[in-house]
Amino acid sequence: MDSKKGSKAPGSPDVEYFFNSAPPLKGRVQTSQKLKEFVEKIVRSSESGRPIRVVCVTSGGTTVPLEQRCVRYIDNFSSGYRGATSTEYSCFFYKNGCVSIIFSNFRGSCQPYCRYLPHDSFLELFDIAEDSTIKVCESHDTVVKRSIKDYRKAVEEGLLLKIPFTTIFEYLQILQMVATSMNCLKSLGMFYLAAAVSDFYVPWENMVEHKIQSTEGPLDMRLTQVPKMLSVLRKDWAPSAFCISFKLETDPDILLQKADMAMQKYSMHIVVANELANYKKEVTVVTSRGKTKVCSHGKDHDLEAELVDLLVDRHFEHIKKCGSEANGAL
Amino acid sequence: MDSKKGSKAPGSPDVEYFFNSAPPLKGRVQTSQKLKEFVEKIVRSSESGRPIRVVCVTSGGTTVPLEQRCVRYIDNFSSGYRGATSTEYSCFFYKNGCVSIIFSNFRGSCQPYCRYLPHDSFLELFDIAEDSTIKVCESHDTVVKRSIKDYRKAVEEGLLLKIPFTTIFEYLQILQMVATSMNCLKSLGMFYLAAAVSDFYVPWENMVEHKIQSTEGPLDMRLTQVPKMLSVLRKDWAPSAFCISFKLETDPDILLQKADMAMQKYSMHIVVANELANYKKEVTVVTSRGKTKVCSHGKDHDLEAELVDLLVDRHFEHIKKCGSEANGAL
Repeated sequence: MDSKKGSKAPGSPDVEYFFNSAPPLKGRVQTSQKLKEFVEKIVRSSESGRPIRVVCVTSGGTTVPLEQRCVRYIDNFSSGYRGATSTEYSCFFYKNGCVSIIFSNFRGSCQPYCRYLPHDSFLELFDIAEDSTIKVCESHDTVVKRSIKDYRKAVEEGLLLKIPFTTIFEYLQILQMVATSMNCLKSLGMFYLAAAVSDFYVPWENMVEHKIQSTEGPLDMRLTQVPKMLSVLRKDWAPSAFCISFKLETDPDILLQKADMAMQKYSMHIVVANELANYKKEVTVVTSRGKTKVCSHGKDHDLEAELVDLLVDRHFEHIKKCGSEANGAL
Repeated sequence: MDSKKGSKAPGSPDVEYFFNSAPPLKGRVQTSQKLKEFVEKIVRSSESGRPIRVVCVTSGGTTVPLEQRCVRYIDNFSSGYRGATSTEYSCFFYKNGCVSIIFSNFRGSCQPYCRYLPHDSFLELFDIAEDSTIKVCESHDTVVKRSIKDYRKAVEEGLLLKIPFTTIFEYLQILQMVATSMNCLKSLGMFYLAAAVSDFYVPWENMVEHKIQSTEGPLDMRLTQVPKMLSVLRKDWAPSAFCISFKLETDPDILLQKADMAMQKYSMHIVVANELANYKKEVTVVTSRGKTKVCSHGKDHDLEAELVDLLVDRHFEHIKKCGSEANGAL
């Protein structure tokens, strides 16, 4: 398995190699068409007055197949909770001025408007009444109704476009499609990259075809670094968009230093730093102007409410700064 | 990372090493108590006449953590569909004489009585009516009601005990607990081991504590073979139980040969051979008497109906053969 050293410029050999050697994205034509229609609708709406902001939220983990006919794969911890919750708050905070594109990992990851529902036992929420209608158990009546109502509203108002992915190959091909489609929105676009993206992969052509056999002894594997696509997103795919990436570490001693490095190395506007042990209770928002802690104030308070509120403010500042460019775009 | 060669006898050093070095199972005391009560209730019921058969269905994949504070892990392909569907048919075929224990992977794996429901968009199934009650969309009314009814019935009749797991460490510790608890049922116990269990793992003490950093270069990993616990189950944990294991391969040329080998090596009563490309359409049931193909007859026909029917017959034969022993047990 091959490996290239160091961080590369956009269009560098390892980026090109990644896309050229990746298995073709299934449903590429349909996804591309859906995206085109979605963005065109936004551009048409914006012509009638109010500019619309679009947030691309990525969520969940990406898998790295170890065999072409994949039985085994490497995955990353990600419940998808942050992405799903932030999508809901984005729709709320931007109010009439926002459309969210979320693309999220299918397998088991949290979906918008589902976080209050039990993940694996939703049948326990319901009963059949005597007249054979379906009844929600009393204990869950309020949250289930709110989830259904909010979800229906978001769908009816056209605020959500969901594009699912599973593997690192699918994720990066879709990110490229979404980013280049959103490029025409200039500074009105925001990338909220909450997905836990694999750092290492096995290039398709170096992968065995069939299931690796459990032979008599240990299994040795060599994984190649995934090229850092954040630089390519910032420089090539959507250079005027507002970009927020996430850094998750388990070691608190290196977290902020790694977040600072990521901001500089990939020219992010903001990096949100998480520690695995308490990522639902506290994050640090790292910008060039300094660091801000955002905390949850208790069981019924999502830190994503305050986080998204802060990011929306910063996005408005970014749009203002790029004002003439944005007005020229739409 | 250490590795031991060859298949070992029960209680061999690599089996002992696995259990001694595994991180302690969370909630062990509660799970053990629940299991004890479940089996005691079955034994009491059987004293009043009809003997009860118990099927332990394992389902889903097992994860192999790569870090102690786990961000990355290796997973196996498994939708959990076979285990979930087979649990439903087991409850149906054994009728009043069966209790099923299923233990299944939480993350994203299919649960019994949920297979007709859309996995990631269940909010789309429901609408709020004008009187603010919840209404099932017409297109899904029949399946949703059937799912809720069947699930409720299974729970009310005490036919299901769910024990979730995620990692290979949790899976094998729970399998040991369930098997030793079911040992007193002798031949009335059946193990239907549909879970896709990892073949390789990183021993806990050899694992790095923190998230592996994406440094400048490739990542090399060495994985140790997971000791084959099927032999231990057959010889030590529950020697009289009826045991069915599953073999999944991507290469049809080696599938049946591997299934034969598994049957002999681990003294299974039956091995069900699956090929990844068509596992929902066809399986081969491998026994010492020969091989039987079981096929799906179309979109609305689960091959699990016929498969479980066949296995229940074979389990009855097994009970008959061990007759005096089983009667002595209960």
